Amino acid sequence: MYFDSHLHSEGLGFSELKKLAENHIKDICSLAFFPVKPRYPQTMMDVFRKLVEFEPVRCKAAGVRMFPAVGIHPRCIPPDYKIVLKYLEEGEWIAFGEIGLELVTDEEIEVLRSQLELAKKLDIPCIIHTPRGEKVRATMKTIEILNTLEFPPQLAVIDHVNFETIDMVFETEYWIGLTVQPEKLSPDDAARIVAEYGSERFMLNSDAGYRDVEIATVAAAAEKIAENVGKDEAIRVAGKNAKKFLRL
Amino acid sequence: MYFDSHLHSEGLGFSELKKLAENHIKDICSLAFFPVKPRYPQTMMDVFRKLVEFEPVRCKAAGVRMFPAVGIHPRCIPPDYKIVLKYLEEGEWIAFGEIGLELVTDEEIEVLRSQLELAKKLDIPCIIHTPRGEKVRATMKTIEILNTLEFPPQLAVIDHVNFETIDMVFETEYWIGLTVQPEKLSPDDAARIVAEYGSERFMLNSDAGYRDVEIATVAAAAEKIAENVGKDEAIRVAGKNAKKFLRL
Repeated sequence: MYFDSHLHSEGLGFSELKKLAENHIKDICSLAFFPVKPRYPQTMMDVFRKLVEFEPVRCKAAGVRMFPAVGIHPRCIPPDYKIVLKYLEEGEWIAFGEIGLELVTDEEIEVLRSQLELAKKLDIPCIIHTPRGEKVRATMKTIEILNTLEFPPQLAVIDHVNFETIDMVFETEYWIGLTVQPEKLSPDDAARIVAEYGSERFMLNSDAGYRDVEIATVAAAAEKIAENVGKDEAIRVAGKNAKKFLRL
Repeated sequence: MYFDSHLHSEGLGFSELKKLAENHIKDICSLAFFPVKPRYPQTMMDVFRKLVEFEPVRCKAAGVRMFPAVGIHPRCIPPDYKIVLKYLEEGEWIAFGEIGLELVTDEEIEVLRSQLELAKKLDIPCIIHTPRGEKVRATMKTIEILNTLEFPPQLAVIDHVNFETIDMVFETEYWIGLTVQPEKLSPDDAARIVAEYGSERFMLNSDAGYRDVEIATVAAAAEKIAENVGKDEAIRVAGKNAKKFLRL
């Protein structure tokens, strides 16, 4: 029983959700994202409602237990985003995500910082995106913001970490998300990382959704880790750690 | 080369879109729908933007040419829906859909009528849903509204028509949509209908999206029609008619 700790179920079809279940990925965390920059803050509120009210039912019908994460992705910052922050403050949530920096603009920094402040106050785990471009700079800035806020280490996972950023994230106490996809890390890469850095701080994900992606990469990576490193390590990074992080 | 004239690409994953293309369904019309009742009219405007700006690009990457249809589905009527109508009036659109009646409430009737009036004024083809429950009553009411508006016959397809409603729709001059899915019509049913009623007024669709559905039903039905009725008839109901209706 594996846990995919970061994907976008809204971009997956029913047969793809079933494929997760068939590959023993029975638990997933599905993160809020809207593929065009919204013109209205209200949209994000209804998008969160869709993710929390409709998507778990659809996922369950496909054999997958889905835990939704809500929040403003740096590519989805609407005008008057404070209306969305107020909505986030008033709700009850399992996690905030996908939040983070993309181009490291002042607005992105402000939106990330506001959401982290809220998460610290409300005691909510945060799944923090790092981008493909600007990866080093965005990761450094993210760590700086977290440190400045004295953000509780158990409440943050820094995600899409790669060989360029792993050392600077490993030096912190935050969780580390490894995204297994052809253009990101391979199952072998994930196994190498876990062999070198241990399994305590890592959680695996596919970031699947919308695009042409491989679906069951958490299972593939877990098998590789079990083979090359150890079964306990595989169980930890492909399940236990995510459950601990999300308090399930 | 087939045309699926009514589906919801937003509920399909990339591998499912590719499956359409692999089955020679290279053209699709993707209809607006939001799976929870929106709390804000603004949401529908951003949902239309996603469908028009993002979805065609995603579909194209999977090998499918997508034509978006926008409109307020009876299960997605937001408060202050007149704001959405104004947005629809000001834009340029290929088609309106999915519009129609679900429970045949006064509000649904008003929203359908308003959208049809707009479509008549702006000369926009409309894809009109009929529900699973209340099918006969909703279909009769829909026809009554269309007739009262003297709605141009070439601009409306009445969709999800089944054996219960086919005669009353066939008596009108509107296009007729046949939805081929296990719980609706089978490829054999579609072939029987085309054999009996001719191929002039029909267009096939899958209504695929979100749920556990079969993807390439338009191709399956077209093959059955080619076999049992004739190749020209298959080409018409699985392609030509939809293109004519949407003026492509």
